[in-house]
Amino acid sequence: MERKRILIDMDHVMADITAQYIKWYKNATGTEMKRVDLLGKEEDLAFPQPQLIRDFLFKPGFFRTAPVMEGSQDVIRELNEVFEVFIVSAAMEFPQSLVEKHAWLAEHFSFIKWQQIIFCGSKKAIAGDYMIDDHLKNLDFFPGERILFTATHNTNVNGYTRVNDWEEVRALLLERRAIAV
Amino acid sequence: MERKRILIDMDHVMADITAQYIKWYKNATGTEMKRVDLLGKEEDLAFPQPQLIRDFLFKPGFFRTAPVMEGSQDVIRELNEVFEVFIVSAAMEFPQSLVEKHAWLAEHFSFIKWQQIIFCGSKKAIAGDYMIDDHLKNLDFFPGERILFTATHNTNVNGYTRVNDWEEVRALLLERRAIAV
Repeated sequence: MERKRILIDMDHVMADITAQYIKWYKNATGTEMKRVDLLGKEEDLAFPQPQLIRDFLFKPGFFRTAPVMEGSQDVIRELNEVFEVFIVSAAMEFPQSLVEKHAWLAEHFSFIKWQQIIFCGSKKAIAGDYMIDDHLKNLDFFPGERILFTATHNTNVNGYTRVNDWEEVRALLLERRAIAV
Repeated sequence: MERKRILIDMDHVMADITAQYIKWYKNATGTEMKRVDLLGKEEDLAFPQPQLIRDFLFKPGFFRTAPVMEGSQDVIRELNEVFEVFIVSAAMEFPQSLVEKHAWLAEHFSFIKWQQIIFCGSKKAIAGDYMIDDHLKNLDFFPGERILFTATHNTNVNGYTRVNDWEEVRALLLERRAIAV
């Protein structure tokens, strides 16, 4: 049987970009923001100086040194045994991120082959059965099963299948599947 | 009406990689190969020292300085008015090519927005209505209309809609369409 294809986003899903924002923002301003203060707000507008957040995205090292989202390595390794996994990142807006994201994946997800990586601008031409993403702009174009990964900026969104962490992805896609089979 | 989506390959389609092979091979060995001697042969095996060709693909500057395929700029600009154009390049095998290809597109195809660029490993997750490509490994997965762009390595292939240059792409996709409408 053909494996089902799953498209997995990087920022805020595999990489903890919010933790990176908080760390870089503290380094730049001395102010330590808390995750709870960011809930339900746009990524940049959640911070007192939004332009700093936008600037970070173009700075060398920002993506390369982002922390790995807790649990993502173990669960994606398991998904990779069962599904056809593609890592799909909207990296094209930040050209320096292309090489950084490639190196980040090689370091933290060495079991992902280069054949499984897609860097794009818009995700509307990427086809699959499941998409795990934190942004509605990506999920809403997708004709397959949409899975919203919780991030500070999407906590007010309703009407989507939501996962709060990688344990919930495992429960949804691996344990449910085990029962179904 | 929704625009039809066309996926356009870079190497050997927008960028004249064969001309670049010939130039770099001459620089490295002193031997000037002719295009006619390469017909119907694998890209690397067409040259007396195949390893050199494979090495070029990892060398800084190879993709960045590749010549633009004749006619591609004008025809892609016209296609871009009529179709939803995505540039889809299997760049992931050669990580240094990611930034070079991005810069090359910005220089030679500045009318292509970052939202329209996809760098991938395998193209099997990329969906569209038409694919223009020189490689069967890309075309054969594609469920839409497959258009084989002639390159030295595919001259012996039969059974595909073939275009020999960008004027033939214009005739196939723009003039035919104009008649149909």
